Amino acid sequence: MQNSTAVLDVDLNAIINNYQSLSSRSSSADCAAVIKANAYGLGYEHVAPALYNNTKCNIFFVANLKEAIGIRSILKDAIIYVFNGLFADQIDYYRDNNIRPILNDLTQIELWNDSSHPCAIHFDTGINRLGLSKSETEIFLNKSNNLNISLILSHFIRSNEPDHVTNKDQLQKFKKINDALPDIPASLCNSAGILLGDEYHFDLLRPGIMLYGGNPRALPLPADIGNVFEIKGKILQIRDLNIGETVGYNARWTAKRPSKIALINVGYADGFLGMEEKVALASIRGRRVNIIGKISMDMIGIDITCDINGQNFDNIKGDEEVELIGSNITLEMMSEVSSLGQYELLTSIGHRFEKKYKLGEIH
Amino acid sequence: MQNSTAVLDVDLNAIINNYQSLSSRSSSADCAAVIKANAYGLGYEHVAPALYNNTKCNIFFVANLKEAIGIRSILKDAIIYVFNGLFADQIDYYRDNNIRPILNDLTQIELWNDSSHPCAIHFDTGINRLGLSKSETEIFLNKSNNLNISLILSHFIRSNEPDHVTNKDQLQKFKKINDALPDIPASLCNSAGILLGDEYHFDLLRPGIMLYGGNPRALPLPADIGNVFEIKGKILQIRDLNIGETVGYNARWTAKRPSKIALINVGYADGFLGMEEKVALASIRGRRVNIIGKISMDMIGIDITCDINGQNFDNIKGDEEVELIGSNITLEMMSEVSSLGQYELLTSIGHRFEKKYKLGEIH
Repeated sequence: MQNSTAVLDVDLNAIINNYQSLSSRSSSADCAAVIKANAYGLGYEHVAPALYNNTKCNIFFVANLKEAIGIRSILKDAIIYVFNGLFADQIDYYRDNNIRPILNDLTQIELWNDSSHPCAIHFDTGINRLGLSKSETEIFLNKSNNLNISLILSHFIRSNEPDHVTNKDQLQKFKKINDALPDIPASLCNSAGILLGDEYHFDLLRPGIMLYGGNPRALPLPADIGNVFEIKGKILQIRDLNIGETVGYNARWTAKRPSKIALINVGYADGFLGMEEKVALASIRGRRVNIIGKISMDMIGIDITCDINGQNFDNIKGDEEVELIGSNITLEMMSEVSSLGQYELLTSIGHRFEKKYKLGEIH
Repeated sequence: MQNSTAVLDVDLNAIINNYQSLSSRSSSADCAAVIKANAYGLGYEHVAPALYNNTKCNIFFVANLKEAIGIRSILKDAIIYVFNGLFADQIDYYRDNNIRPILNDLTQIELWNDSSHPCAIHFDTGINRLGLSKSETEIFLNKSNNLNISLILSHFIRSNEPDHVTNKDQLQKFKKINDALPDIPASLCNSAGILLGDEYHFDLLRPGIMLYGGNPRALPLPADIGNVFEIKGKILQIRDLNIGETVGYNARWTAKRPSKIALINVGYADGFLGMEEKVALASIRGRRVNIIGKISMDMIGIDITCDINGQNFDNIKGDEEVELIGSNITLEMMSEVSSLGQYELLTSIGHRFEKKYKLGEIH
């Protein structure tokens, strides 16, 4: 159906390009893809096969077993790892679906106790989230086991701060573990970690946010990483306001000049969150305009009053397209005017949008 | 599958009870239900039939045509109104699915131009969002039309501020319109509007947020409106930390005493947004504990160090349940520690949770 909801266009070629760019950063390591939380909100059913069929990527990381089984149903031969580890009643599901748990403590290791089905071991080198603690790591390394370990991994605390001493610190700790288990492939790098350089790369990279065009660091995004999606709304209605008239709930915006405003069919239920009473950005006919007033559940107001540079919006009618993310507005710019960060916004976008996927010829 | 994701339990009886409580506020008006944005994130496929089959509710409001068609597919005879109005290429979809557009300006009224299929007319009484402007209202009321208008409506600017003069102001404006169209049912009240009292009620109430236990006002929630859902996570791992050890990305939380922390399987991809570096709340074994550090995409850390009131968490193991919303923690409390409001949080929750619905006998 036409025009029913606003549209989220996902450019699968751009995701493939970002994967190739990140993969090419290492001379030796393979490159996996992190596609948890429905490929960061963009749709795993499309993102996973696009990478699997058009790149060397055959290893995927997800957060939980339900996500893993979803991916297994469309990619029969891919290798799938689950970050969140193992509960006792999940063992058969892992084995039956050929999914690899990432074991995070000695209890989970004992629970798994499987010499045939592969698993990964997560060593905590300081983030104190999941993974074997320092003392558990010592116990594990000093004891034989009968596991079929296909990967060891650890996770950065501050890879988004490239010069911070904890990166080198964690590297040294992980190197020692890697030295103790020389025959098992090792993985340390998320997106920002990949940019720290070769000595951090080990055997497997596992980028997430940068596959989707997000920027985990305060530094500029590398030139070979690009935006992968566009959000376009449509104008529902146009209003002419007199000086002093207000817009939206609790009258948070007041016309300071005779104003023309447009209401578009995107709201906070579409992920435009944390922007109350802030000036944000939309783009219409290539010109950036302000979001005004409180964002509603299903609607955003924009100020299309025209008095600058001769652009003329007088002939704009309902149904006209408005860009909210795309060539003029990035996820990074959106996060600058929101109380939420890029990761939070990205995973909140796209639950209600009609999603359209583009996949052209691969060069 | 057991334990795959965290669980969102929706109590359909509680939604029914909230509907009855709101409905009983008016001696004369009927009561509809606003179920846009997937019933504010809780699942329209369950919420809509629960209300339709167990209460007098047979009128539903949604934001867009796609949502309306979803509801039509499960409720063949319900009356369904769409707030976002009409685009030219949607007319046949409205007619074929017996869905009623809410016409928001003279262009849409001209476009619809249908004397058989019912429609609603939205009059703007000051919010300057959707609806006929003052001048359009005058034109409309002074001209005959051949429409089959089943409802006229308007929308409050500040019903959440009961004493604000704009409520009375909008009431007077809407009364005049109602007087000019005496034979057509009229609707003004959202949840907070219903609490303004009888003179605001007209013929049809259309509550949204309070059906779902949210509180639109700064005043306490009425005693007959209750929480309708619970969110329960599970402990993935427990860690013992020394003084000075940090937790999570960018080491935002530091142990100031020997600490026991637990990581649970819920993160910002589940709607726990805008809580960075704030102390929030979780409840384990009925005791409220602090959320610590940065919330991750798939994980929240909580401090279960025990040194108060003799509660003993020493025997807690992985797999233990943690309440994030429920009898001890409300949506309102969650919004107090988030940069987001209740509406934003509610519509962001539940995209990834495994949802379970409870519907017992109706009294």
